[in-house]
Amino acid sequence: MTAVATTSPSDVVQEPKPVRASGPTPDAGRSPGTDPAVRSRIAGLRCKNCHRPEAIGPHFVCPACFGGLEVVYDRDAVRAQVSRAAIEARDPGIWRYLELLPVDQAPARGLAVGSTPLIRADRLGADIGLASGRLFLKDDTRNPTLSFKDRVVAIAAARAVTFGFDTLACASTGNLAGATAAAAAALGLRAVVFVPASLEPAKIDHALSFGATVVPVEGTYDDINRLSLEIADEEGWAFVNVNLRPFYAEGSKTLAFEVAEQLGWRLPDVIVAPIASGSLYTKVARGFEELVAAGLVEDKPVKFVGSQPDGCSPVAQAFASGGDEIHPVRNPDTIVRSLAIGSPADGRYAVALARASGGSIVSVPDGATADAIRRLGRTEGVFAETAGGVTVAGLEAAYRSGVIGPDDEVVALITGNGVKTPDAKWYGLGGSADEARAGVPNHPGSAGSGGLASPIEPSYTAFARAGLA
Amino acid sequence: MTAVATTSPSDVVQEPKPVRASGPTPDAGRSPGTDPAVRSRIAGLRCKNCHRPEAIGPHFVCPACFGGLEVVYDRDAVRAQVSRAAIEARDPGIWRYLELLPVDQAPARGLAVGSTPLIRADRLGADIGLASGRLFLKDDTRNPTLSFKDRVVAIAAARAVTFGFDTLACASTGNLAGATAAAAAALGLRAVVFVPASLEPAKIDHALSFGATVVPVEGTYDDINRLSLEIADEEGWAFVNVNLRPFYAEGSKTLAFEVAEQLGWRLPDVIVAPIASGSLYTKVARGFEELVAAGLVEDKPVKFVGSQPDGCSPVAQAFASGGDEIHPVRNPDTIVRSLAIGSPADGRYAVALARASGGSIVSVPDGATADAIRRLGRTEGVFAETAGGVTVAGLEAAYRSGVIGPDDEVVALITGNGVKTPDAKWYGLGGSADEARAGVPNHPGSAGSGGLASPIEPSYTAFARAGLA
Repeated sequence: MTAVATTSPSDVVQEPKPVRASGPTPDAGRSPGTDPAVRSRIAGLRCKNCHRPEAIGPHFVCPACFGGLEVVYDRDAVRAQVSRAAIEARDPGIWRYLELLPVDQAPARGLAVGSTPLIRADRLGADIGLASGRLFLKDDTRNPTLSFKDRVVAIAAARAVTFGFDTLACASTGNLAGATAAAAAALGLRAVVFVPASLEPAKIDHALSFGATVVPVEGTYDDINRLSLEIADEEGWAFVNVNLRPFYAEGSKTLAFEVAEQLGWRLPDVIVAPIASGSLYTKVARGFEELVAAGLVEDKPVKFVGSQPDGCSPVAQAFASGGDEIHPVRNPDTIVRSLAIGSPADGRYAVALARASGGSIVSVPDGATADAIRRLGRTEGVFAETAGGVTVAGLEAAYRSGVIGPDDEVVALITGNGVKTPDAKWYGLGGSADEARAGVPNHPGSAGSGGLASPIEPSYTAFARAGLA
Repeated sequence: MTAVATTSPSDVVQEPKPVRASGPTPDAGRSPGTDPAVRSRIAGLRCKNCHRPEAIGPHFVCPACFGGLEVVYDRDAVRAQVSRAAIEARDPGIWRYLELLPVDQAPARGLAVGSTPLIRADRLGADIGLASGRLFLKDDTRNPTLSFKDRVVAIAAARAVTFGFDTLACASTGNLAGATAAAAAALGLRAVVFVPASLEPAKIDHALSFGATVVPVEGTYDDINRLSLEIADEEGWAFVNVNLRPFYAEGSKTLAFEVAEQLGWRLPDVIVAPIASGSLYTKVARGFEELVAAGLVEDKPVKFVGSQPDGCSPVAQAFASGGDEIHPVRNPDTIVRSLAIGSPADGRYAVALARASGGSIVSVPDGATADAIRRLGRTEGVFAETAGGVTVAGLEAAYRSGVIGPDDEVVALITGNGVKTPDAKWYGLGGSADEARAGVPNHPGSAGSGGLASPIEPSYTAFARAGLA
């Protein structure tokens, strides 16, 4: 790569406010991209499949081949407008990377998303076999609604405002409902989230907390997706993961931007990420490419390791087969609901990335996922939801198989907080969660290194007798 | 104030690592303060009551009068060593304020605590009556274990390491258990947390996630505190909120430091904080004083508004009485368990601060707390636990009474995340949480602006018929 730009035109760089600002949304009501200097960096949309161009708008499917659309940038314009210095001078959060995002201006409102910690995880690394200082965790349990979904929703929501939508909606089975509801609340939009009627009540609590309307639908997740398409069309609502999907998907790139900046404007040797649709996994790679193209980091090889649960691993199966056809999984059977997407839209792009980068896509049993959640909690004090367990278990599998070497610099993406799926960590132990809670002493799997003790009387004698000292 | 220092001796300022580092703890095993340049800023401990000095160590009670101990600094040394520039050049987190904290060096390990967002809350502010741009929320729902307790535990845990303890312990009824367990995990210490046997199982899940030993005790919280004292003494364990309390309490000052820096090195007009023991409330004031003394911010009057739940409001009652005697509440009766401390140790200091600063200490009914949680979620996309609801409800009460004016710049401290006490937000509504979850349409209190709808079939016709468009 050539030298990194350290200055940028003052008419383009906007200093985000130190905190969330208010007032009228600056570009609401006018066409996006009125300012030519800004407009030029967002070139339009394009079909990921046949590459047919499409204008910027709430479009998501190619009218020619029905492929998914993605945002296209003018990379020369981006390179001219962005710099490390400008980014570093801005406040924390995803909008510090504005020139690399599909939004003309940093929104004047919205949640404080991103700039989550990159944690040096020597204790977990040693447990797995990595050399000291080689394993880092990108801790996205620290986002506003406790998962990386805040990143993707933030981009979609900002675009929803500029497109003039007043209702933000989604089809969700978990984290997305809360993220959409919170983003809408902060922006003053109405939120309507559609969930399967069979969903556990605890999962809708989060969305209800933010004043969303939660609509249980008697049907499968696929049924809800079809209904969402129709409602988006008939009602003119912004479904973050349907008609705003091209913008939504771009939010995952901010994980890549933050990792590179937090490493001191460098790329790591390996990324380990969970795979549901394959969007996050492939967009992190895209983020790295764009950083290189913008002159912000040196190019270097990065291996991409993806991880799926055994009970729904169509992408891992395609990778293992040597082909690139994704065979849908009709009946996912796993505790990892957030990764239970049987027909992953970006599955074949994920397979191609794993192969091209020298990485792999593994699948792990639910017991290994639960064990990885416990191990991560014990060694690093980070409590991950099941997808985070799949990531850590996948990291270990890739290390054992030699895809990851002991001296590789590895960044594992921990995409959500375990407080919303607390029972998962007990899975696969001899005792059940109920037993653990009922006071079974020295819970299996944790004897000698923690666990729930039998109740004691409030005296030192009772304490000493219990053998807890 | 005189001019702010912009440089500091290079032998004192330590740049924290970009991410959590590893390796041996730098000062484990040697006496604290070997380096005179560093030692000089931490002068020792002192009785808060009779001002008798005590050496730095795991001491917490005055041997002369049994008053609580606090850390004393050499303010001239602090002023000579600290600067805005040095702080700003460091990475996010509480250790950027090292010279104002009772630890000689930034610890080489530990959780990534602090640097939580300060959110401009215009939508909530408008709802209450404040002018635009005058209300900010300090969002401590974003700490590693989702509450401000990570701040206090981090300081105690860092000190536990330098004092040579190998077991980190606490007596807890909620957030503290998880914070202690996570901090211990990240530092490689053993964690043992003592909880009332009657505690809801969900509350111990978080601590168990981090591999802690959880010991249910058949007794009251007071019983557990007495037992903790005995165990600390007999076993030589570090109880973060008992024998390490003077250091633990200092952690709350980091809220003040962050607020001032995030406002652009200024103090606000009003702080609104929840009151349990009164420690957080008074330590935030202390933090502001120390910033002024260190020359980092200009002095100015700050009103301190404290808030308690009606069902346990001994400090608010003392404030209202005009005296300063705290009458213990023997049987707290409130949904706000984290503030249900009947004999608040720093109650009279809190009353004095409220009076001296022109603030007040209010108490609010649980229904107002639950309503405030819903309002905060709907207007700002922030989901607070009950203590956060007490803070927002207290803010409103102080505004209505005229203690807070419409043009005051107000910072409200939101100290914990609602995901750990999700049911509280339903309190006081016509319908119960169970009813809401069972699918009662248009949940009372949320009709027209959110709530749980009746299940629908997966068709646009069913959607349209349900009147949701």
